[in-house]
Amino acid sequence: MPRYRLTLEYDGGAFAGWQRQANGPSVQAALEAAIARFAGHGVTVVGAGRTDAGVHAAGQVAHVDLAQAWEVATVRAATNFHLKPAAVAVLEVEEAASDFHARFSACARLYRYRILNRPAPPVLDRARVWWVPKPLDVAAMADSAGLLVGRHDFSAFRAALCQAHSPVKTMDALDIRRVGEEIWLDARARSFLHNQVRIIAGTLKEIGEGRAGPDRIAAALATGRRQMAGPTAPPAGLCLMAVLYPPPDGAAASVQPAGDRADDQAHDDVDDDEAGGHQP
Amino acid sequence: MPRYRLTLEYDGGAFAGWQRQANGPSVQAALEAAIARFAGHGVTVVGAGRTDAGVHAAGQVAHVDLAQAWEVATVRAATNFHLKPAAVAVLEVEEAASDFHARFSACARLYRYRILNRPAPPVLDRARVWWVPKPLDVAAMADSAGLLVGRHDFSAFRAALCQAHSPVKTMDALDIRRVGEEIWLDARARSFLHNQVRIIAGTLKEIGEGRAGPDRIAAALATGRRQMAGPTAPPAGLCLMAVLYPPPDGAAASVQPAGDRADDQAHDDVDDDEAGGHQP
Repeated sequence: MPRYRLTLEYDGGAFAGWQRQANGPSVQAALEAAIARFAGHGVTVVGAGRTDAGVHAAGQVAHVDLAQAWEVATVRAATNFHLKPAAVAVLEVEEAASDFHARFSACARLYRYRILNRPAPPVLDRARVWWVPKPLDVAAMADSAGLLVGRHDFSAFRAALCQAHSPVKTMDALDIRRVGEEIWLDARARSFLHNQVRIIAGTLKEIGEGRAGPDRIAAALATGRRQMAGPTAPPAGLCLMAVLYPPPDGAAASVQPAGDRADDQAHDDVDDDEAGGHQP
Repeated sequence: MPRYRLTLEYDGGAFAGWQRQANGPSVQAALEAAIARFAGHGVTVVGAGRTDAGVHAAGQVAHVDLAQAWEVATVRAATNFHLKPAAVAVLEVEEAASDFHARFSACARLYRYRILNRPAPPVLDRARVWWVPKPLDVAAMADSAGLLVGRHDFSAFRAALCQAHSPVKTMDALDIRRVGEEIWLDARARSFLHNQVRIIAGTLKEIGEGRAGPDRIAAALATGRRQMAGPTAPPAGLCLMAVLYPPPDGAAASVQPAGDRADDQAHDDVDDDEAGGHQP
């Protein structure tokens, strides 16, 4: 069966999350229903990141196997046609190798958390940002964020229901910057713990308010206690921006240093095969 | 009575337009009701641009007179409090001179029209863009747009119900550029005819499709016939980005050349005193 790789955009506010579930519409179920209608058979869509209810995606990636070969433009157009009026669209479709796996093959996931930091409440982007009216100290937030980069035990930054086998993750980058009236947190890692980015956003917001210092980050990392970190920031501010995959075949070694790859394979890779690592 | 200048953001999709009216909610009425609740007396809010239903604003400007003097931060906070949950917010409040008039004092209005030009339909910005799936020739659109800059009779680019006394307007700038998957049309003029920007967007889209050439613009300007121009683009793609005012007192001469000022005062100023010029 030919395999296809889909790049997806969706409005998390319209769904109970990525994953198919009994109570509430899911992105996965909407896609599976739309693809089944044009393909003529049931399908399973596997996503790279199992985003929570309210969390958006501008570049989620998924794969699906179809019984027959279709032009990629046809897969996109037909799926988008049958998706209407659901708040999800297929941006790109590519043919994928039979061993491509949207979840297990991913080498990096990029999430952006947007804080609107101004006195007036949001209007046009009200479903896309976390409104924090008091001015935040972005430099302090960026300094503290630096402590989270690298390989750490992120036990203090995971939801109670996180199912990942290991709390040890490698944060490849965590950039904090002001963009107009907003503050953007851009996090990049091979995989994340459940609510990890949202708890980091909630913690950095308290540091930006001056209610905590960088020692809070250090203490949270050292103790692994959830209560040392800040609150879980609301889902609407979070967006899965992109999922990266290594180039086909032996070219992968050029993407990242051999040492980092070994690290990832020793840890994150194991988690990725299990339930965790996909709901930041 | 002290006068205040308000800078406003609103979601045009939630209103039947800026102007107070019998059928449907208006931005003006929502603001007047909210301000009246904290000020304790009825008010009239005068806006710089009377946007149509569905047209957004990120920088509309209005003025209002209050019976007593308030801290500007109080006016903003109290108005925003009473506006909830309406899709409008007061971004800034400044004290204004008694002769400041949001509509008549304006020396420039900046509108942006956003076209999403990709095969997949919009999701996250679906209420903010005009979706044109076929690739558009942006260079051709920009070249043709150049013909519209300057002082022209824009009769071909005005709605049938436009109430402006004169169809002669001066387009100060009309910049077309690709921004990621979008094409942005940024128009700047002292004032606009009703639907002027949306008809320009509809015409340039046809030129971008190759269905018309720059001669269409030339013919529309020369004949003044509405049917020579393209269709009126949908309102959701349009946003009033900013309204500019001359600096107080004699400093105005440094803002624009004397020649342009004379031109504006001979034409646009007259229209601005009448009904037209504010619903592009």
